[in-house]
Amino acid sequence: MAAAAVVPNKKVVLRRHVTGFPSKEDMEIVVDTVSLRVPEGQTAVLIKNLYLSCDPWMRDRMAASAALALGFAIGEALVNYGVGKVIDSTHPDGWEEYSLITQPESLKKINHTDVPLSHYTGVLCDWPHDCMHARKPFRHPPWFTFGSCMTGVTAYSGFMEVGKPKSGDFVFVSAASGAVGQVVGQLAKIAGCYVVGSAGSDKKVSLLKTKFGFDDAFNYKLEPDLTVALKRCLPNGIDIFFDNVGGATLDATLLHMRLSGRVVAYGMISQYNIKEPYGMRNLYTIILKAIRVEGINVIVNGEDGWDIKEGKVTVVEDVVQGIEKAPAALVGLFSGKNVGKQLVAIAKA
Amino acid sequence: MAAAAVVPNKKVVLRRHVTGFPSKEDMEIVVDTVSLRVPEGQTAVLIKNLYLSCDPWMRDRMAASAALALGFAIGEALVNYGVGKVIDSTHPDGWEEYSLITQPESLKKINHTDVPLSHYTGVLCDWPHDCMHARKPFRHPPWFTFGSCMTGVTAYSGFMEVGKPKSGDFVFVSAASGAVGQVVGQLAKIAGCYVVGSAGSDKKVSLLKTKFGFDDAFNYKLEPDLTVALKRCLPNGIDIFFDNVGGATLDATLLHMRLSGRVVAYGMISQYNIKEPYGMRNLYTIILKAIRVEGINVIVNGEDGWDIKEGKVTVVEDVVQGIEKAPAALVGLFSGKNVGKQLVAIAKA
Repeated sequence: MAAAAVVPNKKVVLRRHVTGFPSKEDMEIVVDTVSLRVPEGQTAVLIKNLYLSCDPWMRDRMAASAALALGFAIGEALVNYGVGKVIDSTHPDGWEEYSLITQPESLKKINHTDVPLSHYTGVLCDWPHDCMHARKPFRHPPWFTFGSCMTGVTAYSGFMEVGKPKSGDFVFVSAASGAVGQVVGQLAKIAGCYVVGSAGSDKKVSLLKTKFGFDDAFNYKLEPDLTVALKRCLPNGIDIFFDNVGGATLDATLLHMRLSGRVVAYGMISQYNIKEPYGMRNLYTIILKAIRVEGINVIVNGEDGWDIKEGKVTVVEDVVQGIEKAPAALVGLFSGKNVGKQLVAIAKA
Repeated sequence: MAAAAVVPNKKVVLRRHVTGFPSKEDMEIVVDTVSLRVPEGQTAVLIKNLYLSCDPWMRDRMAASAALALGFAIGEALVNYGVGKVIDSTHPDGWEEYSLITQPESLKKINHTDVPLSHYTGVLCDWPHDCMHARKPFRHPPWFTFGSCMTGVTAYSGFMEVGKPKSGDFVFVSAASGAVGQVVGQLAKIAGCYVVGSAGSDKKVSLLKTKFGFDDAFNYKLEPDLTVALKRCLPNGIDIFFDNVGGATLDATLLHMRLSGRVVAYGMISQYNIKEPYGMRNLYTIILKAIRVEGINVIVNGEDGWDIKEGKVTVVEDVVQGIEKAPAALVGLFSGKNVGKQLVAIAKA
């Protein structure tokens, strides 16, 4: 039996635990080697990684004490969802070019090949059906794991099942051009709602109006007072707030909710890198207006295939080429550098 | 036709708008007169008030700008739910001995007379079936009105429909010996839950354990750290938090919720009299644990008659005698002076 070829394997390794905003210096690129064959006697699968997903929640795992799942270890490759190709015997998850997967049962075969493969890191990631999920054991049951893999299904189930849109509802989406926001806005339009999004640049605002079909949008960085922007764009108030931002944005928007409004608490990116969370003062509105606030981190129902396959939903991805660019892409999420779902393309096939 | 008898009519009148904690001096007793016959040509009903309900939400209507409903006018009688008897032709609602009701269609006939009449101001107040509601028009649609009238139905629908208790669930009730808390605790036991309550005196704690069947209870005033008390009484965490207090209590309890926990936001008595609301810092837990927080102020479904009629639910009322005692009873709510549902008995029949 011929010896297996050994090739270089670049990885993004955690250099130090993160406090505050993550920086590129918290990570480093390390070049290791990998045998292109699964070691003899090992039940495993060797994956060539094609796309890796880049998501805000990874910040939590870079801290010394992670709240969501197992923290990343210093000196080890970061881990997240992705799409890959089986080389030797299926589970691309390490932030590395190749990954040896010893729990192949956790790999999910991709069934639909009529859309870009990259969509399977996000909008089409119908976990547990189609997605390959993290190799490392989680502190919580598997269905507690979350991240990019939730972009599609969770945007769908969060908006539809928690938001319960009715035709004519007024919908506000924060961080609306992001991986999740762009999908939610389009689902809202399909449901017959009036939808307004906020984003952090004029380019993104333009994208919301022209590409994703939002009825209105504003650049929150140019609005000294969110309340004024909301009153201008949504003078009748808000029935559904799909929130990716949290903190002051959530607090101000609560006051603008209508009776029996629904807040889908999907993300709080404003709160991830700060030591002292923002003090929310408008919670009493929840009682005054009989508002439901529901946190989403669970894939409640895998909806295998939906509007995207019928071409009803447009997806914008922000893809950087090469694993060397991964740390900057991850850091860029927190300053809103990305336009749409952030991905790292590792290899062509 | 003989002239109708004219009798004195004592009322509790608003003397000045309230800021901060209400005081007895914000109200005064005024003696007016009333004819015991409805004035000729007027479509109205004359009611002799028997019981008036005394509820925290009245504080809001005493402020210069009321958030919930029409504010009380200076010099006019306070208004709330009650039980009364028709003298001349039907709607006891004014904080006065007699009330002339010009919209008799808003009166609700009491159908069940096998329980104390006073229960109809609270636990049995099955609005819109059995309850007499406020005479004044509300700023919002009628189903937005709330107060004592919600004690029974809303405790029931809030706990059952929002809390969705399952046998074995861990339930925490704040202000548990109050009008709503005592009912919720008993409903939780009927549903097979393990239920813990907090209250502000050892007497109330004892009542929770001996009279209302709570599995455990603690005096929050003796607990320097709520988190420690919760960990001791509910080491496995909380599935349902029925909250009457809000603020720091809600913030601390959020951290102790279990995955997919439900928070029934029923009241925030800690926040009613303060200028700057407490800054809630633990909202991110909502996402981490996929928690649902739902505000209750609406009578969603009138459940006409339930466990109380079968003798399954015990009710403790704190009844003061005479309308002169009404201002002190109302003020006492905010220092936890009342034990159970606070009522004012006006007349025997």
